[in-house]
This record gives sequence, C-alpha cells and structure tokens, in this order.
Amino acid sequence: MRITLIGSGNVATHLGAALKNAGHYIVQVYSRNLQHAALLAYHIKAEAIDNLQQIDPNTDIFIISVKDDAIESIVKHLAPLNKLILHTSGSTDIKVLLQYRAQAGVFYPLQTFSRNKEVNFREVPLCIEGANAGITQQIKELAQTVSNNVYEVDSLQRRILHLAAVFACNFPNYLYSVAQNLLAQHNLDFDMLKPLITETADKVQQQLPTDVQTGPAVRNDELTMNKHLEMLQDQPLLQQLYQLLSQGIIKMDKGSNADK
Amino acid sequence: MRITLIGSGNVATHLGAALKNAGHYIVQVYSRNLQHAALLAYHIKAEAIDNLQQIDPNTDIFIISVKDDAIESIVKHLAPLNKLILHTSGSTDIKVLLQYRAQAGVFYPLQTFSRNKEVNFREVPLCIEGANAGITQQIKELAQTVSNNVYEVDSLQRRILHLAAVFACNFPNYLYSVAQNLLAQHNLDFDMLKPLITETADKVQQQLPTDVQTGPAVRNDELTMNKHLEMLQDQPLLQQLYQLLSQGIIKMDKGSNADK
Repeated sequence: MRITLIGSGNVATHLGAALKNAGHYIVQVYSRNLQHAALLAYHIKAEAIDNLQQIDPNTDIFIISVKDDAIESIVKHLAPLNKLILHTSGSTDIKVLLQYRAQAGVFYPLQTFSRNKEVNFREVPLCIEGANAGITQQIKELAQTVSNNVYEVDSLQRRILHLAAVFACNFPNYLYSVAQNLLAQHNLDFDMLKPLITETADKVQQQLPTDVQTGPAVRNDELTMNKHLEMLQDQPLLQQLYQLLSQGIIKMDKGSNADK
Repeated sequence: MRITLIGSGNVATHLGAALKNAGHYIVQVYSRNLQHAALLAYHIKAEAIDNLQQIDPNTDIFIISVKDDAIESIVKHLAPLNKLILHTSGSTDIKVLLQYRAQAGVFYPLQTFSRNKEVNFREVPLCIEGANAGITQQIKELAQTVSNNVYEVDSLQRRILHLAAVFACNFPNYLYSVAQNLLAQHNLDFDMLKPLITETADKVQQQLPTDVQTGPAVRNDELTMNKHLEMLQDQPLLQQLYQLLSQGIIKMDKGSNADK
C-alpha cells in the first residue's frame, strides 16, 4: 500500500515504522513543523512536507495522527482527493470523518508510545472501525500486516477503551511519579520500587485486578491508613488522592479476596 | 539457621519458601488458625501450631509476619525466650520490638505477594534494620541468603517506602480494576488492556515516571478530559478521582516532557 502520514508525533512515529517494516510504501509525512516531519520521514524513507497544498495525491490511504481538535480541519483538506482516510484517535467519533468523506475509518492503537522506547508493534491491540463492511475489511487487512491483535470496535466502545486506558496507563504512571517524589524527598532510590511495579502489572496478566487487590485499604487497616494520611499532611492533593483511592478500594466489588 | 515463622499469610508463605529453599530449617509456623499454619508448614516441612505456649525455644530467629496491630502482643510473648526477633512490616517502627527485646530488627520485603502467583524472591528488595551494627550485620547475612537486593533502611525511610509502595502498587491495581469494570460494562475484554499495562510498568524500568507521562492531562487537552468526565457522570467517585489525578498530572514537576 501507498500510505501518507498526517502528523509526526509518537503514534505516527511508531505506526509509521511498523507500516514501513511490514513492506508498505510511505509516500509523505506531513507536520506543521517541517523539522518534525523530516525526522520521521528520514527514518521511513518518505518525503517531509509542512503544507497540505504539497500533498501527493498518488497515495492509497491517509492516516491522520494529530491532536483530536485538529482532525476535522485536515479531513476537509483531504476529502476532495477521494482516498481512504483513517484517524488514530481514541476519543474521536468516526462521524467526524464521515461528514466529509464516506470512505473513512479508524485505526486506533491501544498503547502508550514514547519517543525513546521501542514497542513490539505486533502485540499492540489495534482497534479498527470502517464506514461499512467493505471498508472495515480493507482496514482489517492493513491492520493485520502490522499487528496480531486486531479488534473491530465501534466509536462508543473505542471511547470507553480510551477512558479505560487513561485509568490503566496515564494515572498509574502519575502514581509512580508520586512514589518517585516521596522517595526522592528522603534520599531513597526509585530503583527500589521497580520490582514491585513490574510484579503489580504482571499479576493482572493472569488474574483480574479485582481478585488481587492488596494493601491497607482492602484490609480496612485504619491504623496504617491514618499513619499514611498523617505523613501526607503537607501535601493536600496527595492526601485527598490517598483518601479517595482508599475509599474506592474499600467499596470495590472484590473478587475472591484471597490476597488481602 | 533455625527459624520460626509467626504468621501464615502471603508474606510468611513466600518468605518461608525462600528461606527453606536457601537451606534454612523452619522449626514451626504459628497462626491463630491451625489450618492456615498447617498449609504453610506442610510446604516447608515445619510444625504447625496455633498456641504461643507451644513455641519451641530451640530456634535462632523469630520472624513475625502478622497484622501490624498484632505485632506488639506477640513480641511480649516471645521476648523471654531471648532469641533474635524480626518483624516484616513496612510501617511498624523497630521501637515496637525494642521496648521488649534488645536483640531485634526488621526484615521488610518490598513486594506484593499473592497466594497463587510465584515471585522470584532473589529479586525482591529486602529492607533491613537492626537494633545495632552487629545485629544489622547478622540480619544482612540472613537476607543475602534469599535476595540479591538487600538495603539497610531505617524506620522512617521504611515508613516512606511503604507509603510509596501503596502509591506504586495498591493504587495502580485499583485503577486497573476501574478500567476492568469500565470495559465489562461495555462488553469489552480486559485482555485488550494488558499490553498497555505491561508497557506502562516497563517504561519506568528505564526512565523516570515524571519523564514519560502521557495522556490528555499532561497535554492539557481539555476537550478530551471534558468528554471523559461526562462519560463518568453516573460514577461520582470516579469522576472526582479523574479530576484529582488530572490536576496532579497538570501540576506535576515534569521531566523532559518529550512524550506528551
């Protein structure tokens, strides 16, 4: 396939590399910032552009990976070229594309991407949606060239997945950073927590999170929780967070609860 | 060493197995519940007891792994036997032991243990503290027979580590459970989130959490955050959590911020 990437951020970078490795031809990389476009384009042997007027119409698919609120203005530009248009956003409805272009769909990778960390793209869950069954099939075939985990997911489900991903990824990472700061304040090395973080993520690969909750809150160990709240007395946001998260755990719909 | 375990929960179970595997002799396992004691004792070829009067004085070390508020009453019982007494609690000061027994210390494994999940104990960070330098050395030698990651940590630092562990383990697991429930409400499989959870934990093994924060909050993407809050309107606790965690991320002391 001849593919044009609109955007050059983390998603475009990792997806572009995966598509290139799968044997597709990347025609162009567009970014408002030509240097950003050039950096990605160089790696995947594409042309870098920073002006939508320079778009090469000789492509099969446009994949839009830009900030959610920029998608619509880009689709307007691309629609007259009569190609398949996909976006990669978790929380943007397919309708945003369909109002300008009937041949459209979604290609949402449910993963967190960082510039300096490689990801095995074959394991990335790809959530796809097409304007109709034929387009869905076309997107599915493209998706299967880069990932073993392709899911057909409608726009509502995708919105839920994106929200769930915030809870399962962005928020845990923030909590890791809270732990990092607590340790740093007492000259303790973040390395000490790494096996614990790995094990916590590892455990839910085999068992459901509700079945393996541990810690003071699930034991309703008020002595320890009160000690912790006292230690956080100079950090009101963390104190409030501790209370709210503990409250959630106490109320949670527990599983077997063998591991309190 | 001849070692007696007081308690038969997750910590005692995993620590007992590690000590046994390292060649130590486990004399007895005490629990208020004889069946619980017997289950662990069977695996590590020890005697099970449910009465502190049955304690065999022919041991070198008592390791107490019971709920924090039960530690003191147990030390009182054991002190007259004149052996080394250790506890494994993250948030109990060594002084709780020292008021009854001068030859005492702490042996705190900084890990989450579940009944049905094996852990490579050699990688578990063991935080040790002794009543004096000689005892610390003795505990260190014992610790090194089961773990490659032995740290000398005082009671204040250990309290911080325990609090940090709640933020880095118990709270993230709760957030995984929130994601699990959101997906279940929309007939989506929790499996879809597993690669994301693994990658999030994996990323902070090489980089600091503050350097790899992603998601709508760190981009200050109000459009997406408002959509998410709207989706949570029937779940006030989650809505409040979403707001508070996002607020924390927005305020966080970011690193390079290359990966928003």
